[in-house]
Amino acid sequence: MNFQGIIGHEFVGIVEKSPAPEWLGKIVVGEINVSCGSCFYCNNSMGNHCPQRTVLGIQEKDGAMAEYLTLPIGNLHVVPEEVDWTKSVFTEPLAAACEILEQIQIFTNDEVLLIGDGKLAQLIGRVLQHHTTNLTVLGKHPSKIELFRKHGINAVSLGEFKGESASFKVVIEATGNWQGWDLALDMVRPKGFLVLKSTYVGSHNFNPASLVINEITLIGSRCGPFPEALKLLKEGKVDPSDLITEIFPLNEWKNAFNRAQQADSMKVLLEH
Amino acid sequence: MNFQGIIGHEFVGIVEKSPAPEWLGKIVVGEINVSCGSCFYCNNSMGNHCPQRTVLGIQEKDGAMAEYLTLPIGNLHVVPEEVDWTKSVFTEPLAAACEILEQIQIFTNDEVLLIGDGKLAQLIGRVLQHHTTNLTVLGKHPSKIELFRKHGINAVSLGEFKGESASFKVVIEATGNWQGWDLALDMVRPKGFLVLKSTYVGSHNFNPASLVINEITLIGSRCGPFPEALKLLKEGKVDPSDLITEIFPLNEWKNAFNRAQQADSMKVLLEH
Repeated sequence: MNFQGIIGHEFVGIVEKSPAPEWLGKIVVGEINVSCGSCFYCNNSMGNHCPQRTVLGIQEKDGAMAEYLTLPIGNLHVVPEEVDWTKSVFTEPLAAACEILEQIQIFTNDEVLLIGDGKLAQLIGRVLQHHTTNLTVLGKHPSKIELFRKHGINAVSLGEFKGESASFKVVIEATGNWQGWDLALDMVRPKGFLVLKSTYVGSHNFNPASLVINEITLIGSRCGPFPEALKLLKEGKVDPSDLITEIFPLNEWKNAFNRAQQADSMKVLLEH
Repeated sequence: MNFQGIIGHEFVGIVEKSPAPEWLGKIVVGEINVSCGSCFYCNNSMGNHCPQRTVLGIQEKDGAMAEYLTLPIGNLHVVPEEVDWTKSVFTEPLAAACEILEQIQIFTNDEVLLIGDGKLAQLIGRVLQHHTTNLTVLGKHPSKIELFRKHGINAVSLGEFKGESASFKVVIEATGNWQGWDLALDMVRPKGFLVLKSTYVGSHNFNPASLVINEITLIGSRCGPFPEALKLLKEGKVDPSDLITEIFPLNEWKNAFNRAQQADSMKVLLEH
């Protein structure tokens, strides 16, 4: 988005100042899209797509890697007492994982292929394992594949993968690279669904004819429902704690960024 | 499909030979996908996607430009008495137009943009005008744009088109050229639907990021429901007769092909 400013859009914090005193001291997470509240999208439950929106740490609004941030009260959700901050800080990406289930129904026997082993893929896997008994994750990094397995999710490497072309009703592409895109197109079956959770760099040669002939539905998927994510955290259905590689104090942000850039790193947190 | 054989998949005919005598003499149209009847797709109401299928005049099965053709009884639909053969011969493409409504709901106020002015686009326009009062057709050829207008459909040329980017909830791409594809991607709004009715030659530079960010759903759409198409013809809700450019006897097929290749030509029929 060519953003210049303070980055950071996944956070949990304490309300220290508010025109509504009942919010003071509350532990909150916050939706990142700040919408105008009066346009067509805002009036039709699509505020996340408001063309006038700013986005925390992403578009025209300073984000969470700071001592303080601001958000409208309407964006806030109180974190349930049961949910430790090291879990609630995952609300935003977990909501993005839940968005898939707002867009398509996944039934218990549906063959689902999740491509990717990064942070978002890990959360998607933990959400979807409650919806299908037929989930396969295709990963690249042994330690990240192992992390899925630790949670009882069937994860395999590209070398081990025996999936046949056109054999999955639902394919979720969460790698953001073109190899993942091509594989996703190959694996989704006729009348199936290809959910795109990642954006891509550059462009790629493509012919949509196979989507037409096989009547495939391709669904772009982005921000999701915070209440559902908080519910999963509260009920313990998703526990993201083991995705945390290390926690740094805010003033050690340089070390945090260095750590985050190492290949084995998953989530690196800043605490203030 | 690299098919070699007798082409032709849009037809109406008379049953002259059948193991089931009650079919003899019936005037019928026929679904073009001949499925195996026992695979996963056939057992789940997706016989049109049976991987073992042959397709009349398209894939491993001789088609309708002949004195006789064969089809399984299960593929046949009796044409209602009220429907003249010059109308019922449009059942197959009209069903393909109807397929859109099997895949997405279109509500009366939905902004729908149909890109294309060819034969299939003409049928799609005539179907959709019964579902939304907010249909715009974007065409190229003055005579074909005029044909939409004759049916009370708002059709414009590229030069006249004033549509803004991201302003249509539903965009239907029926040109099969990359200019149409690019325009469709530009015109569909966030959370909107892009229905692809055409296949494309070659490949094209593409980045699906805008689909992800704007949570757009892209739907490939092919063969559709014959009963619905016959119902529209029977009730007179769609009258395709004026799409016929000329009718030739089968043995004048060379003249028919020449006529069909002229720029102003719509549908050219062969009669036997």
